[in-house]
Amino acid sequence: MNTETQTQMINGVNLDQLQENMDAIQQQPSLAEFQFRSKGRWLDGSHNRTVIDGYYGVGQEHSRQEPFVLDKDEPPVLLGKDIAANPMEYVLAALTGCMTTSLVYQAAAHGVEVEAIETEMEGDLDLRGFLGLSQDVRKGFEGVRVKFKVKSDADEAQIQQFLSMSPVLDIMTNPVPVSVEVEKV
Amino acid sequence: MNTETQTQMINGVNLDQLQENMDAIQQQPSLAEFQFRSKGRWLDGSHNRTVIDGYYGVGQEHSRQEPFVLDKDEPPVLLGKDIAANPMEYVLAALTGCMTTSLVYQAAAHGVEVEAIETEMEGDLDLRGFLGLSQDVRKGFEGVRVKFKVKSDADEAQIQQFLSMSPVLDIMTNPVPVSVEVEKV
Repeated sequence: MNTETQTQMINGVNLDQLQENMDAIQQQPSLAEFQFRSKGRWLDGSHNRTVIDGYYGVGQEHSRQEPFVLDKDEPPVLLGKDIAANPMEYVLAALTGCMTTSLVYQAAAHGVEVEAIETEMEGDLDLRGFLGLSQDVRKGFEGVRVKFKVKSDADEAQIQQFLSMSPVLDIMTNPVPVSVEVEKV
Repeated sequence: MNTETQTQMINGVNLDQLQENMDAIQQQPSLAEFQFRSKGRWLDGSHNRTVIDGYYGVGQEHSRQEPFVLDKDEPPVLLGKDIAANPMEYVLAALTGCMTTSLVYQAAAHGVEVEAIETEMEGDLDLRGFLGLSQDVRKGFEGVRVKFKVKSDADEAQIQQFLSMSPVLDIMTNPVPVSVEVEKV
């Protein structure tokens, strides 16, 4: 069946669906509540595996066709076998991914086309924190530098504004309450 | 050539190398300085790719035999094609991976054996923050719940202490300075 209706796409984002979602959430704010989940297990040494499948959002449970499997390891200088990227590198991947999608979606919502994005990130870590060798050194990244190379009509201030909406950037730059439960089995 | 020296392994961690690393860092603290890096590019819509290869640590540059490629996407309800886990799920993978390795390494350093670890994580996100629909809602996770099921002789307080050394847990629960540079190309 043919239809006259054309889907309005910008930056690969379905603008009609984005607008519908925003309207629905304004009518019923609970539709905005999401819960993401992971299950993991230790394999050996620094090698462990995270499985991502179900999540909750838009008022219902969802599952994937196939779970996503994310392995982590450490390089030899950190006593691992370099089977996979390490958790600090996963943080950079999360940040770069989230800021990229934030830029693309926010630009789409403002009718701004983006042609290309390339990113470079660096994070500084002083191992003395983790090793407990210094009280003055924090355990996590001491600083992260993010560089975005963007091909778009948007000006730099607008791009910075779009990037600032990133949820993972918020997680990095502001405290998140994390509760840790231990069960001995 | 045979040798009488036996490598001392615990939890899959080479204890001799761990002790050597700690001694070397105490002699020369700059050996503890690491820099992790990522390069990324936008593919389409919510699909983007991060490539992990080189890093700096123990006083020198390193590269991997093959770079690690980490794709991110969003599920259909978030306007994506579900090609890969999303950035929020990458945050959970980073956290679970780092806390698991922290437990395994810290236990090894204290001579404590760990037999098995399974983890479950949940993170709550209210999309109104990202969508700019409410000033009272933050953009990132409002809270994360972590559950560790551990088979080990260590008691619960000791396990909690080992987990608390995790660099990614520090990144989540405390602010990290992130600088963002935009270059228009």
